[in-house]
Amino acid sequence: MQNFRPETANLLTATEAREAIEQGLLTSQELVSACFSRIDELEDTIGAWAHLDRERAMEQARQADHFRSRGLATGALHGLPVGIKDIIDTSDYPTERGTVLHQGRKPDKDATLVSLLREAGAIILGKTVTTELAVFSPGKTTNPHNSAHTPGGSSSGSAAAVSSAMVSLAVGTQTNGSVIRPASYCGIYGFKPTFARISRHGVLRQSKPLDTIGVFARSLPDLALIADVLMRYDAQDESMTPLAPPCIARVMAEAMPADPHIAFIRTPKWDQVEDSTKAGFRELIDEVNQRFSKAIEVVDLPGQIGDIYEDHRVIMEADLARSFASEYQNGKSKLSAVLVEMIERGQQVSDEEYQSAVGKMIDYSEYMDEIIEEYDAALTPSTLGAAPAGLDATGNPIMNTIWTLCGTPTINIPLLQSPEDLPVGVQLVGIRGDDAKLFRIARWLLELLDD
Amino acid sequence: MQNFRPETANLLTATEAREAIEQGLLTSQELVSACFSRIDELEDTIGAWAHLDRERAMEQARQADHFRSRGLATGALHGLPVGIKDIIDTSDYPTERGTVLHQGRKPDKDATLVSLLREAGAIILGKTVTTELAVFSPGKTTNPHNSAHTPGGSSSGSAAAVSSAMVSLAVGTQTNGSVIRPASYCGIYGFKPTFARISRHGVLRQSKPLDTIGVFARSLPDLALIADVLMRYDAQDESMTPLAPPCIARVMAEAMPADPHIAFIRTPKWDQVEDSTKAGFRELIDEVNQRFSKAIEVVDLPGQIGDIYEDHRVIMEADLARSFASEYQNGKSKLSAVLVEMIERGQQVSDEEYQSAVGKMIDYSEYMDEIIEEYDAALTPSTLGAAPAGLDATGNPIMNTIWTLCGTPTINIPLLQSPEDLPVGVQLVGIRGDDAKLFRIARWLLELLDD
Repeated sequence: MQNFRPETANLLTATEAREAIEQGLLTSQELVSACFSRIDELEDTIGAWAHLDRERAMEQARQADHFRSRGLATGALHGLPVGIKDIIDTSDYPTERGTVLHQGRKPDKDATLVSLLREAGAIILGKTVTTELAVFSPGKTTNPHNSAHTPGGSSSGSAAAVSSAMVSLAVGTQTNGSVIRPASYCGIYGFKPTFARISRHGVLRQSKPLDTIGVFARSLPDLALIADVLMRYDAQDESMTPLAPPCIARVMAEAMPADPHIAFIRTPKWDQVEDSTKAGFRELIDEVNQRFSKAIEVVDLPGQIGDIYEDHRVIMEADLARSFASEYQNGKSKLSAVLVEMIERGQQVSDEEYQSAVGKMIDYSEYMDEIIEEYDAALTPSTLGAAPAGLDATGNPIMNTIWTLCGTPTINIPLLQSPEDLPVGVQLVGIRGDDAKLFRIARWLLELLDD
Repeated sequence: MQNFRPETANLLTATEAREAIEQGLLTSQELVSACFSRIDELEDTIGAWAHLDRERAMEQARQADHFRSRGLATGALHGLPVGIKDIIDTSDYPTERGTVLHQGRKPDKDATLVSLLREAGAIILGKTVTTELAVFSPGKTTNPHNSAHTPGGSSSGSAAAVSSAMVSLAVGTQTNGSVIRPASYCGIYGFKPTFARISRHGVLRQSKPLDTIGVFARSLPDLALIADVLMRYDAQDESMTPLAPPCIARVMAEAMPADPHIAFIRTPKWDQVEDSTKAGFRELIDEVNQRFSKAIEVVDLPGQIGDIYEDHRVIMEADLARSFASEYQNGKSKLSAVLVEMIERGQQVSDEEYQSAVGKMIDYSEYMDEIIEEYDAALTPSTLGAAPAGLDATGNPIMNTIWTLCGTPTINIPLLQSPEDLPVGVQLVGIRGDDAKLFRIARWLLELLDD
């Protein structure tokens, strides 16, 4: 941190930038300028942003600097720019949801999560590219590590913007694999909290029992920083219950209370994982166990979760059909073929099928908690491998489906590399409600590997 | 704290009870039981509660204890009972607003402030008595120090419940003097924050530019504890702006950065202050200045604020006429004469008069900040004297009007005594936005006097 130049302050982590701003070594205006220089340089290739307004962002930064100069209380993200996925409502930028059907849409209210960011002093830098209605059909974004490859989706722009140091923090959403997959492909940290711990009020709904807000950053402390701001109860999201804030940063810093134990769960889809990723996991596990004997052990999921992928599909597609009924009815010709297919399959799902899948979802979740509860966390691939070549699809979310359906918290840690030198993430999974402890074991793991 | 018995845990401050619960010396169920024993003993005389539901409160306490026993993260008010003024919506108790016109009213959503309390782990013990629509016409509550005297209003039940140790924390509202006055009369701490720093979403509206949420407690740290939970940005209250939480408890504990300086402001209504209260102030100031030379000096407000009381009346009554138009139209015969009069005067206020008063309100506020800014705080009476005898009125709010109109934060500190041995408060006033620094100087003052 000592030798950063304000012109390249965009390269700092959010935690570093916050410290620099607090110490008076950096202003928010300098930081936002550095972010825009980076955007000027790379946006034509990467295409991470759906809406940018330099003047508006600079004005927010001016206010933040002015506020600090008056010695007033500052929040956890004071003066730090954040990117917001374009399905999340903002009162000062359009929110067009990745489809021409919502072109020109301009909400007059902030989503709750945006108002929490503003309260914490964050600068809303702009809106990031989403796939069409946050499903599969890609936007313009490319992978910062190789522009011929997908960045993953649906939170494509948020992941790419953080990965390319256009911004140090961004928010996305996951209904299947839309946070952890792009984080893995883009080589950054991603966090999907326990279901219903970040408010979805003011966020496009795909599926009420599945939609989950997640965050991106270039370090684990940065993920904790923004997660602590966003994980607040909001009565406007009916799925939330009034639980105390998890205090992730504080718990993360605590010593592990006992010898750490991690379950390596390959999942029923391990066969589809790329060989180089499999080899990467073997090496990683060996290295960890060499440094800390028996820290990781292999655990197999029994057969009874075999239907889990199909149950997820039933819930998600039936909910897509409901959530996007008016888009389908009034603008079917402007929807992608892949989404139309999903909606039409969803229309065929009977109430009985849907209720049965939701019922099983609850069983799966409890069952998964029981398995992971014997350990500090589970380790599993974030994706089948590195980002596939091509920009017409966003890769396979199959390694994320179980954890979205079960509502467990998961973190993508960028630890592996493909033979083509593209990043591949590992996924650390906790039990529901124990988000802070999941961060603690992640911190322990990174320190162990760093030794 | 060492020797408390669970059966009398209601006598603990909230801060003490929290510590006892954290250390496993007390359960929330024991605490709630102790509160209900106290209520059984005194409620017939004091009449602090509009709605109580022992089973519901005990159920919340059971859940809090269960939650803690599982080792999950707990909030700042975990397991602590709180009383809520009956003009603040709660999803699980009626909210009848002190008038037969709203008898049986049962909101299905919590006010934002109630959801913040739930998130922090608080037990909603019940709803406290308010005057009619939070204006002047009293409810059933009596003063815990002498049941022939008024407890003050409009937050009568909240102040009386805290004063009589039925509960250690309660929430009220102030549009003129409805928090600081009952706190003074009941001999407890009261805090009215800077305007628009606690959300009014889900709270009965009297006057948008004046209505302010406030809190009651039996110690200064307790006030800080609940204020830190409630002072959060909420986009649903249009008057709020996204500012960082003030971190009152943390700032309050800091050393004073320079020699403290307090302005003693008598206000244009000093002539009406009772002689014994005047004498009490003289003694208090002498004592403070003896212990800390020149800490307090007399400051006179110049003439140009002479209209301030009339401007407040114009705004409040015009807003009452608007806010209670349907009550007036459909149930005038069921409203008190005093309220009908105010509404009818308010109906006569022209748009021009109203706008002129609101314009002057902004000037007064800036002007008052300028005066107080030269000091750490201003000291002024909370009330003209002790609670008047009689239960047909709630006393004079004239010592609170300026500070409500100007939106400045103020704290009632129970420091004086009337010749009849009734409590009289002193009011410490800060500049807008500096709520935390106001608590710091209050802490300093109490420590000085305690030496």
